[in-house]
Amino acid sequence: MALIVQKYGGSSVADCDLIKRVADHVIACKKQGDDVVVVLSAMSGETDRLIDLARQVQATSDPRELDVLLATGEQTTISLFAMAVREKGFEATSFLGYQVPIDTDSDHGKARILDISTEKLNAAIKSGHIPAVAGFQGVTPRGNITTLGRGGSDTTAVAIAVVLKADICEIYTDVNGVYTTDPNICPNAKKIDKISYEEMMEMASLGAKVLDIRSVEFAMRYGMPLHVRSSFTYNTGTHVVKEDETMEQVLVSGVTYSRNEARITITKVPDSPGTAAGIFNPISDANIVVDMIIQNTRAGDLTDMTFTIPRGNYDQAMGIVQKVAKEIGAERVAGDQNIAKVSIVGVGMRNHAGVAGKMFDILARHGINILMISTSEIKVSCVIEEKFTELAVRALHEEFGLDHE
Amino acid sequence: MALIVQKYGGSSVADCDLIKRVADHVIACKKQGDDVVVVLSAMSGETDRLIDLARQVQATSDPRELDVLLATGEQTTISLFAMAVREKGFEATSFLGYQVPIDTDSDHGKARILDISTEKLNAAIKSGHIPAVAGFQGVTPRGNITTLGRGGSDTTAVAIAVVLKADICEIYTDVNGVYTTDPNICPNAKKIDKISYEEMMEMASLGAKVLDIRSVEFAMRYGMPLHVRSSFTYNTGTHVVKEDETMEQVLVSGVTYSRNEARITITKVPDSPGTAAGIFNPISDANIVVDMIIQNTRAGDLTDMTFTIPRGNYDQAMGIVQKVAKEIGAERVAGDQNIAKVSIVGVGMRNHAGVAGKMFDILARHGINILMISTSEIKVSCVIEEKFTELAVRALHEEFGLDHE
Repeated sequence: MALIVQKYGGSSVADCDLIKRVADHVIACKKQGDDVVVVLSAMSGETDRLIDLARQVQATSDPRELDVLLATGEQTTISLFAMAVREKGFEATSFLGYQVPIDTDSDHGKARILDISTEKLNAAIKSGHIPAVAGFQGVTPRGNITTLGRGGSDTTAVAIAVVLKADICEIYTDVNGVYTTDPNICPNAKKIDKISYEEMMEMASLGAKVLDIRSVEFAMRYGMPLHVRSSFTYNTGTHVVKEDETMEQVLVSGVTYSRNEARITITKVPDSPGTAAGIFNPISDANIVVDMIIQNTRAGDLTDMTFTIPRGNYDQAMGIVQKVAKEIGAERVAGDQNIAKVSIVGVGMRNHAGVAGKMFDILARHGINILMISTSEIKVSCVIEEKFTELAVRALHEEFGLDHE
Repeated sequence: MALIVQKYGGSSVADCDLIKRVADHVIACKKQGDDVVVVLSAMSGETDRLIDLARQVQATSDPRELDVLLATGEQTTISLFAMAVREKGFEATSFLGYQVPIDTDSDHGKARILDISTEKLNAAIKSGHIPAVAGFQGVTPRGNITTLGRGGSDTTAVAIAVVLKADICEIYTDVNGVYTTDPNICPNAKKIDKISYEEMMEMASLGAKVLDIRSVEFAMRYGMPLHVRSSFTYNTGTHVVKEDETMEQVLVSGVTYSRNEARITITKVPDSPGTAAGIFNPISDANIVVDMIIQNTRAGDLTDMTFTIPRGNYDQAMGIVQKVAKEIGAERVAGDQNIAKVSIVGVGMRNHAGVAGKMFDILARHGINILMISTSEIKVSCVIEEKFTELAVRALHEEFGLDHE
């Protein structure tokens, strides 16, 4: 008899029929003798619908009130789910963030979980109930509703699994698991049976959207095994676990890509101490995350700086940089939104030299120019022209031996 | 400088544009120097939409979970309203039932307010904020969400006005006030400028839907003046106040009707002690409210019993009564769903004999047969065939002198 935390994403609870199907599956697990705690997202599309309502009344949503609004999405699904379970003759009780409670800081829209009380959840489990917890939301010490940001329901599920000392945290979604790359681009993509937390974190941060990166970080920190699987097939999916020896046999575990990239270059920047800070501080003050940075030294005390940012922040960042460039006497500012980032990820890289070189070679042989490079212990990322994205992904996937047999 | 509690019904906040208009009006009041506390309903249609979702997952909704679901409706409008106010540069803060808190008993779906804490609301008012309170909802001592039943937002508003010692409670809706009768049936209906609590309660209980009867009862008990008015014209509406001498000049203040009626007759009931209880206890156990009861004694120890119930409970009540009739040896059970109730209401009746007689006479002269009669100090109700409803309302309205000059 195990204790399982099951999280169902928006596409798994998109309408009442799907909610009833989820209830059936949870009850089946319960009948097998397992205790189940369910964490639910809002119906798919609902959060966007609510954000659109908010935009209609206020240009920039008040963070506290937006959280009050968005929290209704999960409130709806947990109550409907509890009813669906009860319709089948089993007991279920919904729990909102403030009812568990899931204590967070007051950083509305991206709150961090501080503590989760286990008392009420354990009492519900003990009395045979299936607790249905609202994902994505928490409560501040003053009783205000907070939300954890996009993907926050994954974090809720993992955090609850950790505090309840669950045996496993299952993340149900609309795909069969984590793939070696995006099957929409590469039909030969394979489902990965087992992947390490580190690799999963890199994949998530590089554009694979199946799991929220914070939830993986959380799971890794507490050693909570994750199982990413489909609520439509209920087949075995991808286990995200501690790295083990068998994994090292694979050089590259996955190929990811992101089109959400833009590049800004400032040429002939006077190369004096504090110049970089002068450029990047105002950008980070505007909450724009800079990804890669490259600096090329020119003749004299001049340098060229190139960096990438999310494409959605392009206009804002250009405005900031143009102002700064004038102040520091740089020559000019150029930008490019037609770029993409392709990456290879694998813990095997740690013990094998030449993986990056092989990647550059593959791209070169396909006539793909590399604009920027960034590496970590277990990944290599290359910025390329966006039009080469599919070609690059397919070439890397095949030549690193990830294609279906 | 006054403290005003303003309640806006679902049609007043049916979409984002209307919510912005309400925000404009509240801000205008604030600019005039008044403090305003706003109580909001769900967008019109939203509660029905949620109930429909609930029906899709469970045949009979679990009361606790249904309340969790329904409470999202007001949560949505208060957050959107607070944002709309903030967009105009004023301060507003939303309050859910558990945040005020509005303490209720645990009778889900029709909870009663036990206590309302004023501390947070007063602090918000003092700091210049406009508190936006979710109507219709409260919280139990154990932290469960409750709802107060249909029309509950009116009760929330009046109760908050009472505990905050507000100067007035304004109930905004989509009509200009309380009318002498339904203008849809009788184009000559007049807006009533001033009406007593007692009359308003009778009107509400008899089918005038502009105010929830419990809220009027509450206002009467604490002497809270109400002002029912339109959020579309913002004209002066109807003041609901303590009875005063000027009111007694009017014999009849209003004519109401209800088509939500059904009648059940049991013939040849053995007339022994306990028989009535044997019939009506199982009906009230099923939460069906019996309105009028008539008993006709026949020859021997037999009697006929006729009573009315809400039409929506007809099938259920017939099932119960048929079973009981068999047990007690009654002859047969007959039912009729094609009936209506027309009523005249007025505190003037107290001091004037013959009002009921005049009503019977008017109906008779129009060829309308009276099936049942019930009276109170300030109202007379007659059950008639449903097809005569409009005719009866218009005739009573005209002949009691309520038509527009």
